[in-house]
Amino acid sequence: MAQMPHRFTYRVRFRECDPMGIVFHSHYLDWFEYARTEALRDFGLPYKVIQDGGVTLPVVDLAIKYHKSAQYDDLVTIETTPSLSQSNLRLTCSYRVLRSSDQQLLVTGHVTLCFLQEGRSRPVPAPLFLQKALNEG
Amino acid sequence: MAQMPHRFTYRVRFRECDPMGIVFHSHYLDWFEYARTEALRDFGLPYKVIQDGGVTLPVVDLAIKYHKSAQYDDLVTIETTPSLSQSNLRLTCSYRVLRSSDQQLLVTGHVTLCFLQEGRSRPVPAPLFLQKALNEG
Amino acid sequence: MAQMPHRFTYRVRFRECDPMGIVFHSHYLDWFEYARTEALRDFGLPYKVIQDGGVTLPVVDLAIKYHKSAQYDDLVTIETTPSLSQSNLRLTCSYRVLRSSDQQLLVTGHVTLCFLQEGRSRPVPAPLFLQKALNEG
Amino acid sequence: MAQMPHRFTYRVRFRECDPMGIVFHSHYLDWFEYARTEALRDFGLPYKVIQDGGVTLPVVDLAIKYHKSAQYDDLVTIETTPSLSQSNLRLTCSYRVLRSSDQQLLVTGHVTLCFLQEGRSRPVPAPLFLQKALNEG
Repeated sequence: MAQMPHRFTYRVRFRECDPMGIVFHSHYLDWFEYARTEALRDFGLPYKVIQDGGVTLPVVDLAIKYHKSAQYDDLVTIETTPSLSQSNLRLTCSYRVLRSSDQQLLVTGHVTLCFLQEGRSRPVPAPLFLQKALNEG
Repeated sequence: MAQMPHRFTYRVRFRECDPMGIVFHSHYLDWFEYARTEALRDFGLPYKVIQDGGVTLPVVDLAIKYHKSAQYDDLVTIETTPSLSQSNLRLTCSYRVLRSSDQQLLVTGHVTLCFLQEGRSRPVPAPLFLQKALNEG
Repeated sequence: MAQMPHRFTYRVRFRECDPMGIVFHSHYLDWFEYARTEALRDFGLPYKVIQDGGVTLPVVDLAIKYHKSAQYDDLVTIETTPSLSQSNLRLTCSYRVLRSSDQQLLVTGHVTLCFLQEGRSRPVPAPLFLQKALNEG
Repeated sequence: MAQMPHRFTYRVRFRECDPMGIVFHSHYLDWFEYARTEALRDFGLPYKVIQDGGVTLPVVDLAIKYHKSAQYDDLVTIETTPSLSQSNLRLTCSYRVLRSSDQQLLVTGHVTLCFLQEGRSRPVPAPLFLQKALNEG
């Protein structure tokens, strides 16, 4: 069982910084994707394996609050806490982004995804492996 | 006085689409930026002019709900409804993204920004021009 | 017959500018894609139609020279001159990016693509429509 | 003295893949930037330190050849070989991108940058530290 929250360390890139000298706000969503992918991998269920099984995970909704700015070349830690809705139809990942050097909280947010199975028109429950990993944690 | 909501038409680009064949979710935030910029321009206050006056508008918080997917080469309409908080310290833009061909609602959301003045550590009120345009609309 | 070179006007976005205050160099490739798409559309052969016919156009090689910097909110004109190799196996688009206000040349470059047909392992010749439009122009 | 070529390992992200299921071609330039940054750091001269000294490195020209496609979740190795022009006015980084699992060559290319000093209108020579690291290697 993976430890919670999952932690992913990332280096801020020049291309992500804007003329204000800070990370442009949309890139935090990219980092959320990287962290989510690595969290699922650590749970033993790489997103690529889910996808190869004909299941895709489109985003349903998301929200972000910006507290402090990340800057060029900062190391940041993205903490991911995944959980399933009671129906197992939705996966919500809650996020905290911290500057690694001093643990300053930069950003909080969440992304909620659902599970689509190829050939079916309506969302399906999370793969059993993920239900086990998350509900019996 | 600009008409509300402001409407901005955009063509979905190949680089914005993912292996699911749909627009990757973070790009809607990019479109929100394009639409916000054009809405401010139509209010007679281009963001570049605000910025040249030493004021920057960092994002404070945002949220998005995804209803239907935009796909490659779709024309989409981004509707922007800007409003100031009672204190004039925050600008919230509410968004609706529609597929232009059939007016199908794809995405709703908002982005809230504050006003920072060069050399001051705390947020300042919106430029008067913007207060006039938005509060007396 | 579309006029050559094809011209596409674009507004530089804040998200494309870096802490040097100029457009980050990779985004010119994005603009090349937008301009190429619109050039093909004006030739009567939208890329989406090519793609729906099971043909994809992966990039084979490219090169860019940067002469002057584009900056935030600049209007730029992307000139595209498409041509087919003698074998019709490759499409090369030559580009010039100009600042629209004063026609200052900012960037020159090219992108070469080939044609892949679903179910075939080797590149195929350009669709006839494109051969006609480009070779008899 | 850092070993040449410098090697940087990277995981392909979902947001970088397009509807053909492969990495969109412009993202290799992003990887080149990541690899270049880490190569300079390993030479003892982080780009952020160069930049804090008032020197920026705009891109002058670049070229890329695409041999095979990188795909979602691939691990890739980016090999960077930096060298200075005889005048020390230009830094050229030559790149090879390999799929890490089987060393399949995917992409080759180069990016050439110059050195701009705040307050000067013409390019300046590379910082001495970099001249030493690269010319006496």
